[in-house]
Amino acid sequence: MDSAFESRGGMPKIKRPLREADVPSWTGRTEVLVVGYGGAGSCAALEAARAGAAVTIVEAASGGGGTTALCGGHVYCGGGTPVQQACDFRDTAEDMYRFLMASTPFQDEAKARLYSEQSVDHFAWLEAQGVPFKRSYYPARHSLQPDDSCLIWTGNEKVWPWSEMARPAPRGHKAAGEAEAGHLIMKALMAQVDRLPIEKVFDTSVDQLIVDRRERVVGVAGSRFGERVHFRAERGVILSAGGFIMNHQMVANHVPDLARDIIDHGSPHDDGSGIQLGLSVGGAAIHLSEYFITLPFYPPEELTFGVLVNHRGQRFVNEDSYHARIGQAALRQPDQRVYLIVDDSCFHYPDINQFVPEMPRTDLAIEISATASSIKGLESALGLPANSLETSLSSYNEGAARGEDPLFHKHADWLRPLDRAPYAAFDLSLGRAPYLAFTLGGLRTRASGEVLAEDGAVVAGLYAAGRNSCGLPRNCDGYASGLSVGDATFFGRMAGRAVAAADLG
Amino acid sequence: MDSAFESRGGMPKIKRPLREADVPSWTGRTEVLVVGYGGAGSCAALEAARAGAAVTIVEAASGGGGTTALCGGHVYCGGGTPVQQACDFRDTAEDMYRFLMASTPFQDEAKARLYSEQSVDHFAWLEAQGVPFKRSYYPARHSLQPDDSCLIWTGNEKVWPWSEMARPAPRGHKAAGEAEAGHLIMKALMAQVDRLPIEKVFDTSVDQLIVDRRERVVGVAGSRFGERVHFRAERGVILSAGGFIMNHQMVANHVPDLARDIIDHGSPHDDGSGIQLGLSVGGAAIHLSEYFITLPFYPPEELTFGVLVNHRGQRFVNEDSYHARIGQAALRQPDQRVYLIVDDSCFHYPDINQFVPEMPRTDLAIEISATASSIKGLESALGLPANSLETSLSSYNEGAARGEDPLFHKHADWLRPLDRAPYAAFDLSLGRAPYLAFTLGGLRTRASGEVLAEDGAVVAGLYAAGRNSCGLPRNCDGYASGLSVGDATFFGRMAGRAVAAADLG
Repeated sequence: MDSAFESRGGMPKIKRPLREADVPSWTGRTEVLVVGYGGAGSCAALEAARAGAAVTIVEAASGGGGTTALCGGHVYCGGGTPVQQACDFRDTAEDMYRFLMASTPFQDEAKARLYSEQSVDHFAWLEAQGVPFKRSYYPARHSLQPDDSCLIWTGNEKVWPWSEMARPAPRGHKAAGEAEAGHLIMKALMAQVDRLPIEKVFDTSVDQLIVDRRERVVGVAGSRFGERVHFRAERGVILSAGGFIMNHQMVANHVPDLARDIIDHGSPHDDGSGIQLGLSVGGAAIHLSEYFITLPFYPPEELTFGVLVNHRGQRFVNEDSYHARIGQAALRQPDQRVYLIVDDSCFHYPDINQFVPEMPRTDLAIEISATASSIKGLESALGLPANSLETSLSSYNEGAARGEDPLFHKHADWLRPLDRAPYAAFDLSLGRAPYLAFTLGGLRTRASGEVLAEDGAVVAGLYAAGRNSCGLPRNCDGYASGLSVGDATFFGRMAGRAVAAADLG
Repeated sequence: MDSAFESRGGMPKIKRPLREADVPSWTGRTEVLVVGYGGAGSCAALEAARAGAAVTIVEAASGGGGTTALCGGHVYCGGGTPVQQACDFRDTAEDMYRFLMASTPFQDEAKARLYSEQSVDHFAWLEAQGVPFKRSYYPARHSLQPDDSCLIWTGNEKVWPWSEMARPAPRGHKAAGEAEAGHLIMKALMAQVDRLPIEKVFDTSVDQLIVDRRERVVGVAGSRFGERVHFRAERGVILSAGGFIMNHQMVANHVPDLARDIIDHGSPHDDGSGIQLGLSVGGAAIHLSEYFITLPFYPPEELTFGVLVNHRGQRFVNEDSYHARIGQAALRQPDQRVYLIVDDSCFHYPDINQFVPEMPRTDLAIEISATASSIKGLESALGLPANSLETSLSSYNEGAARGEDPLFHKHADWLRPLDRAPYAAFDLSLGRAPYLAFTLGGLRTRASGEVLAEDGAVVAGLYAAGRNSCGLPRNCDGYASGLSVGDATFFGRMAGRAVAAADLG
């Protein structure tokens, strides 16, 4: 018979907790043990070491970087950062907090408050570590500015209804590198780690927590080139080993929406092992069904003048929403069939058709489903219900002509009647267009990183940060680029400080 | 410092697994230990005992019944039951299987297959236990027939798109009692339990699993009137202790949608303890964010002629859908604001306004938001965007006049232009109308009831059934009344058989 915690397909084989008394011998001893050397883990290690603790990082790969090194390099910061000020944008911690609270119906209030209040400090901290940021602003609507400019609108701040809930400000701060710049963040953080007496153990997969007689987490066990290793952690263990988009069993268990036609977005070690380790000692894993997904139909931004409709010819979202919000709204449409309708005045091919450096496949393109000389003709060519598209467009055009969108409140900047033939429909349906996703669910933690059980009690000795925890980015609808890296680096720091200061009672 | 697995508000304090060697003394020894004496637990106990195993049921309440005893009493059966035959409905196991597979995008194929193929047998088994079912059919659209008739349409079988995916048949079989009849099911099952040498231990909350050195589950521990008790289970433990709608911490963790303005629907012991016990030994809990919710705006069925719109004046679902599907669709509308638009020809007050025997509150009613002599006037009175309701209704009426609903394919039986003034709008918004919910997520199990870890490995010695498992009813959209009790009783039986036959290798 199979026994629990054994895997079948190369995915992590998480074992039940090992009692300290049953550890054959200690491979190493430290005070703070950090599992995973990406954005969260490096920041946790830095803060713990600077607080005077002995720190060991254990990493599954042969080097540091994690998923942060692969990302675009946005960090979501606000409240009046030097870049916001240099670019003449006014922002306050309160407006940032309001936006974060409004971004999801189930936000963690304490985390949103702390993150907003300390965001300017966190930005300064990142710069002090050597992460480069220019004092410049990229004005166009884009998922990832192609140059090394810094500030950009990366969320739904200007988008209704958020625009009415908090004063908008751009908060995406990209590290100063062309296009994807996440590697610059990790390069700086890892250089800092190298300056401190922080032990790094690579090529080691952690698959078991070690607990003492009082059930406190006091270490980890794992495998290194086929040999078992055991590390004791006097003060505590920080799980910062990434999400689970690469664990297809977990995806099938928890996010069946992502089980097909989706491009996994992450590093190969985003295998959910950290989350499972937390579960193994009673930590609660929350919102495992939530995810980030993007449908990168823009840039160019002119496509925002287009109208998105489902297979009933109905509009379903304000088209000026952030691409992740649109991706999720699209997935929720019947049969996941969605079209972008454009007229001759705003027709462009999506940029993704030409060049998508971060993508694992090169055959991705957004294709034209139909063209026609009239909306009626387009409706018929797409097989939409009679009069459905015509009704939607005529109502849209009528409002757009007076600068209004009564249904979805698309911003007046992007309203213009679609009335110049010919018309085209791009196919944004699932299975046709590229959808890229990663997971957002993780262990329930306090702002300090302490892992909590279902009933809110602390799991002694265990901390989590980054996508091993459920942090500020908790659903797709309110996601903003930079929120995951911002959350990972900031709450990684909080966890590092907390474990270094932990009362071992 | 708080320690893990300790509760703060009367909710279960699930403890980490206890090693067999650390058990101070055994309160009792049995072969099969069943946690929870509701529909799943009683059926599991019966099958295990009849297979020759010594069985002990441990129940938190002072008597049996669980949530099954409180329910309406529908059991979802098909494939040609004696009642279907007597009432001249043709059904096959294959059509039932097709419907179950189509009812959710993430169905468990093995369970759907087994349940469909053995549904006629399961119905016979229930009758053999003494559960009374008449050979009669209730033809009206109703959430729970008020008389003691048996067969009724309880799901979306006739509703588009399911109507095109499997040949429809009514499959709700209600036990023969007026209105709520779940108690009759439990009365019969408990009488059978009483006839067998099955030990029952009441007033005992199980809060810990006991494992041997190989991590096999070999018993449970709990509290009885303040004293610790320990039961050894030679062959295995079956968790059948209900869902978690009453555990507000778990609801906030996993189903934040249900954290406010919802009426919890269940027994006080639906506290998630069984699910947490499974998690404590590495079982995967899946789809914890899924729920059943109902918005009982009908009966009377004439209200089905009405049209449902959101606060943008858009229709969003075929109004002849099962009430749970409508409830979930309503929750997904912007601001969760929804109205039922009726004209003079179909105006009725919802029955719920008069008499709702199963409801914990008596002040629940569905209220009228606005009345007007024209649709335009209603639109204005409701504060909907200009022309939005008028456009929706004019398009609906145009289709209805020719017996078609191009947008949502509402069945022609329920299509009639709404054109007889005066008009009224009932407020079905969350916080205004009654929404009743229970949870559907639970432990990942095989059809045999064996609990599985995230990676699909078996957790040795542990089984789950009913809402401690994630069974056939896995999302609201495809729910049918009777599916949860049908799943609980059938897979409770499967688990009872499997554990009695378990290879203890």
